[in-house]
Amino acid sequence: MIPITRIGKSRLSNTRSRSIVHQGVVTTVAVPAEIPASLYEQAKDALSVLDRNLIEAGSDKSRILRAMIYIPDIEAKPDFNRAWDEWVDRDNLPLRACVGADLEGEFLVELIVTAAVEG
Amino acid sequence: MIPITRIGKSRLSNTRSRSIVHQGVVTTVAVPAEIPASLYEQAKDALSVLDRNLIEAGSDKSRILRAMIYIPDIEAKPDFNRAWDEWVDRDNLPLRACVGADLEGEFLVELIVTAAVEG
Amino acid sequence: MIPITRIGKSRLSNTRSRSIVHQGVVTTVAVPAEIPASLYEQAKDALSVLDRNLIEAGSDKSRILRAMIYIPDIEAKPDFNRAWDEWVDRDNLPLRACVGADLEGEFLVELIVTAAVEG
Repeated sequence: MIPITRIGKSRLSNTRSRSIVHQGVVTTVAVPAEIPASLYEQAKDALSVLDRNLIEAGSDKSRILRAMIYIPDIEAKPDFNRAWDEWVDRDNLPLRACVGADLEGEFLVELIVTAAVEG
Repeated sequence: MIPITRIGKSRLSNTRSRSIVHQGVVTTVAVPAEIPASLYEQAKDALSVLDRNLIEAGSDKSRILRAMIYIPDIEAKPDFNRAWDEWVDRDNLPLRACVGADLEGEFLVELIVTAAVEG
Repeated sequence: MIPITRIGKSRLSNTRSRSIVHQGVVTTVAVPAEIPASLYEQAKDALSVLDRNLIEAGSDKSRILRAMIYIPDIEAKPDFNRAWDEWVDRDNLPLRACVGADLEGEFLVELIVTAAVEG
């Protein structure tokens, strides 16, 4: 049977994994580690968490396949885009969709990302 | 060519499949079979439908890779979490994201789940 | 290392790919090319864009595994369903979920689709 590697517990809950690796692909979820007031700051923070999650799983942002992004305020999408554009690997552009969806508590952004794992 | 196995028609429509198996992975969609009034009851019901869909496809909840959950009322998320925590396989925690999104009719929860298929 | 093929830039941005192929599967994102006033017309348009994206990546609608659909107005879902039912390959029904989520600008529909690539 092809192994499933479950990495870490979610910061938010002990009944979810932070990342799952299967068949050479990792899926991981990231929210901001802190809760700054602006979407731009939260996005930078969540993208840093994402970087850490990917490295932990044997991947990195150059290997992202697709990113699904949820933000409660679609009007603020340009602020997310700014953080994304500063962060993204321009030689390895992911597929991305960013839609408006309500999030728990004070979160202004949540990322679900699938990436290839090295080797 | 790698085969694609399409299982069943969606309960809601004859123009969608209930589950798709490809390359050892199943993706399935689940909504409640009945429409009880509370999110907690709907979540328990939808998770039972999910169990049936996974078994039908040769998988089960211990092999879930990721679960995407949509609920119209994000404030009620703790009620979904309660049903999840009672249901989840604690030895095999899936990655999970749960965001607020409008659903058709009286549905209070919809699940899209990807799982490894045995063998 | 298993190659990742990144196809095109998103029409909306030069920091995202239109489609990504990896391990025999393509994921692509589609919004309408034009912005007609009705969801039905936008859905037909977006499904045409999807057809082009899939063919460009070596796939087609008969090989779709799953389709995630976002529409801002869930009450208008029957209009999306009408376009879908006219378009879908009845011999190869995809798994599908369609939820209400806010979208940027005048868009009334956005599709994220995963499909098997031939060969």
